[in-house]
Amino acid sequence: MMNRTLPAGEFTLIRDHFSHGFPRSRDTLLGVGDDCSVIMPRPLCDLVQSIDTQVADVHFPANAPADLIAQRALRCAASDLAAMGAEPQGFHLALTLPNADADWLADFSRGLREAADALTLDLLGGDTTRGAQLVISISVQGWVTTGTALTRSGARPGDDVWVSGTIGTAALALPQVLEQSADYSGLAHAYYFPDVQLPLGQALTGKATACMDISDGLLQDAAHIARASLVSLELDADAIPTAVASDDPRWAQCLNGGDDYQLLFTAPASLRRTLQNMDGTPLSRIGKVTTAGSDTVTLLRNDNPMPLPERTGFQHF
Amino acid sequence: MMNRTLPAGEFTLIRDHFSHGFPRSRDTLLGVGDDCSVIMPRPLCDLVQSIDTQVADVHFPANAPADLIAQRALRCAASDLAAMGAEPQGFHLALTLPNADADWLADFSRGLREAADALTLDLLGGDTTRGAQLVISISVQGWVTTGTALTRSGARPGDDVWVSGTIGTAALALPQVLEQSADYSGLAHAYYFPDVQLPLGQALTGKATACMDISDGLLQDAAHIARASLVSLELDADAIPTAVASDDPRWAQCLNGGDDYQLLFTAPASLRRTLQNMDGTPLSRIGKVTTAGSDTVTLLRNDNPMPLPERTGFQHF
Repeated sequence: MMNRTLPAGEFTLIRDHFSHGFPRSRDTLLGVGDDCSVIMPRPLCDLVQSIDTQVADVHFPANAPADLIAQRALRCAASDLAAMGAEPQGFHLALTLPNADADWLADFSRGLREAADALTLDLLGGDTTRGAQLVISISVQGWVTTGTALTRSGARPGDDVWVSGTIGTAALALPQVLEQSADYSGLAHAYYFPDVQLPLGQALTGKATACMDISDGLLQDAAHIARASLVSLELDADAIPTAVASDDPRWAQCLNGGDDYQLLFTAPASLRRTLQNMDGTPLSRIGKVTTAGSDTVTLLRNDNPMPLPERTGFQHF
Repeated sequence: MMNRTLPAGEFTLIRDHFSHGFPRSRDTLLGVGDDCSVIMPRPLCDLVQSIDTQVADVHFPANAPADLIAQRALRCAASDLAAMGAEPQGFHLALTLPNADADWLADFSRGLREAADALTLDLLGGDTTRGAQLVISISVQGWVTTGTALTRSGARPGDDVWVSGTIGTAALALPQVLEQSADYSGLAHAYYFPDVQLPLGQALTGKATACMDISDGLLQDAAHIARASLVSLELDADAIPTAVASDDPRWAQCLNGGDDYQLLFTAPASLRRTLQNMDGTPLSRIGKVTTAGSDTVTLLRNDNPMPLPERTGFQHF
């Protein structure tokens, strides 16, 4: 059995690291340090919330630099807000640590502050506990104008299917991340610093009929939209903006790999021009919503169905 | 390295267990199943939030029955809402599991549903991950009328110090919990089913000047109020309602042991009669707030300072 309570010195250390330097939301009445945080709801807004966990050697290499671990953890959590079209408000952090190394904590909190700053997320509170393995759970929240949250369930037959940015870069980075976890250059940058599509998500409210962020892989996540909306989707294999061309053996990884945190969404065909001309992350029209009442995803090449590329047997992260 | 993704069958299992039977809050617009949950803020209310983690063999015996683990985890998390005087709204669950045993999950979700029902907390969303050790992080939230949240920082010289219920029962239960983790009778009931003081917390808004729930131990938590309010507290050793009398060798454990989740609060002396006559959990007046500007806690016996009983060296949980 382990001692539940961290020694007082460790408490002070942790408090020092997490008690300053984070962006302060104007909605926050009481932040870190009491039994709870307190926020004042924004008028005419709904509150959008999610919780996301990352486990050492499951979601990231345990020996990765602590600031990179923090960057990735907060960005992945915040991506759920982008998927709903929300404006970020703040987060609570639950940190389970095998030990409380001062240098590690300094690096982790620095990475967390930098990510929080980039994402405009206030640190509202947290809990630090001792455990056998590093586990990071982050609950995030943000505002949407009442009734405008984007969900997975609104896709309608006739809608176009769209995706933002390029798909597969983070998945292709995995060998590099596993070999040299401290290197965040090249492909690994997409892995550690996913480009959370918060502005795009907000721009899509009132336009997209369904939306989600790609965390499991494009094909898997398209199936989530199909199921939630009870529609079928047809995707044009050659229209999907993948990190490698479709004759590259790694193409299947791009379609099945997660971690890019781009947005996958559906929108009425009438908005085609509006979406094509939108500022920011480039958008690609990759297919259409077909039958209502079923929930399949079909990949087409030259208008003919092709087998879905198989997920490789063993996913490292 | 482990596979990040739980097999599809496990996903279904978990979704089935957590997708029904929880109390539905009227504020909840969208619950479990999308990228985020969505709630509609209650007019003229602030939102009070906290996150709480429990780790197997740190905060509870790993081999305890899953329903008891769930009961305790949600109740301990909800206690932070009681400390702020909040009305419960809902929670998000981050569950890290070494494996996905169907029976264990059925038991855990049953315990969670029963606790959620008793506490009127809606399950809004969650994340289930694989890890070496069972880790449960729960973010809870509730409403208070704008500006009325109870904090640790409002105690003023002249205030009385109060505590609810009896202190030390859960701490004294630890030997039994460690030996027979499945037995929740007798003392162990206080450990697994802490009586979260939600009605009392709500009744104290507008009355208490500072409030917190006792999770670290009465003396430690009194020091938290002293520090946050920048006042000193004098506690009358013989007025503290402990589970054993002060000549019992376990008396020190009662003062230093956490886990009772009773409320410790301060209130103006003018409210003495009101508080003494309040319905519900009995309240004991155990001391007073003295000097402003310092932050000590003194234990008195017959008006003479006595040494603070020492925390026993090794806390099992």
